[in-house]
Amino acid sequence: MYPEPIARLIEALQQLPGVGPKTAQRLALFILSLPREEVVKMARAMVEAKDKTHYCRVCGNFSEQDLCSVCLDKRRDGSVVCVVQDARDIIALERMRDYRGLYHVLGGAISPIDGIGPDQLRIRELLGRVQKGRVKEVILATNPTVEGEATALYLAKILKPVGIRVTRLAHGLPVGADLEYADEVTLLRALEGRREL
Amino acid sequence: MYPEPIARLIEALQQLPGVGPKTAQRLALFILSLPREEVVKMARAMVEAKDKTHYCRVCGNFSEQDLCSVCLDKRRDGSVVCVVQDARDIIALERMRDYRGLYHVLGGAISPIDGIGPDQLRIRELLGRVQKGRVKEVILATNPTVEGEATALYLAKILKPVGIRVTRLAHGLPVGADLEYADEVTLLRALEGRREL
Repeated sequence: MYPEPIARLIEALQQLPGVGPKTAQRLALFILSLPREEVVKMARAMVEAKDKTHYCRVCGNFSEQDLCSVCLDKRRDGSVVCVVQDARDIIALERMRDYRGLYHVLGGAISPIDGIGPDQLRIRELLGRVQKGRVKEVILATNPTVEGEATALYLAKILKPVGIRVTRLAHGLPVGADLEYADEVTLLRALEGRREL
Repeated sequence: MYPEPIARLIEALQQLPGVGPKTAQRLALFILSLPREEVVKMARAMVEAKDKTHYCRVCGNFSEQDLCSVCLDKRRDGSVVCVVQDARDIIALERMRDYRGLYHVLGGAISPIDGIGPDQLRIRELLGRVQKGRVKEVILATNPTVEGEATALYLAKILKPVGIRVTRLAHGLPVGADLEYADEVTLLRALEGRREL
């Protein structure tokens, strides 16, 4: 129904997560309504993001250079490494502005169903960093899901023999949430992790 | 927090309708995860859709050429013109595969609040087409909203003196809907428009 170029754009946009045929159509027609220079700017931003973004050789964070801005920052504490599943988790942790250590991106979590075992993750690289001797604590910040927990347990088992401190982010009630709506597992973890006031 | 190229992409994507900062971030990271050739293909689809899509000189429909595929189709009935607000409405009507007449895109609806009067719409062009004498019926298919109704009434007033048939799409219950959930105005219109069985 649509002229070929519009149909092709709608099809291309349907690849995006959460974008079905109707949304793709709406996005395509919106893009058509933009001035040409805006369309070119958006298209160029896509290709440039892809071309200029790499992963840090040491930690796996997003980076424009060989090493990311966190690894290059001399003021960061090299004795603490926070292990995350994905580079985007670093963005969330950095927003807190409180953590001054380094990071390590695993690139996923152990999930036998999806064929992801320890060898598919950047675990060897993590061990290599830890064995250099500077690291004193590894904070496991994998997701609080079945896969994330399994990965954390696995890492704890292989990291502890190295003789470093291995910690895990606390589970409990999210700040600002309503107790009434908390699920049982979260409540149980919050109770187990209760602290003296 | 993100490297510049990613931040720029997130910003560009935030222009899209219904895309806030969180969604833009998710879309950007998804785009980064695609193979380079897929990213280039999507970017190119945007610019090509913009560059190769024009509006039909006669009816205002999307078109790759001077005239759109509907206006060029000799088998269509040139004595009936269906007036719509937007080119995308034509797509919806064409999906029905039942209408064999031509179209005319107004480019909006009369809306004094938004500063849109008859002069901002393609009404002069519509009158020009009608006055050429071939058109016998104009079907007003503007949206069933306050602005769409006002536009339909306005068009009926100026088209009737020309001596052609002026009709409006029926209002009533949408097929498949539940009577219980129909709003009062729709029910009233359905009652007014009831037909003998």
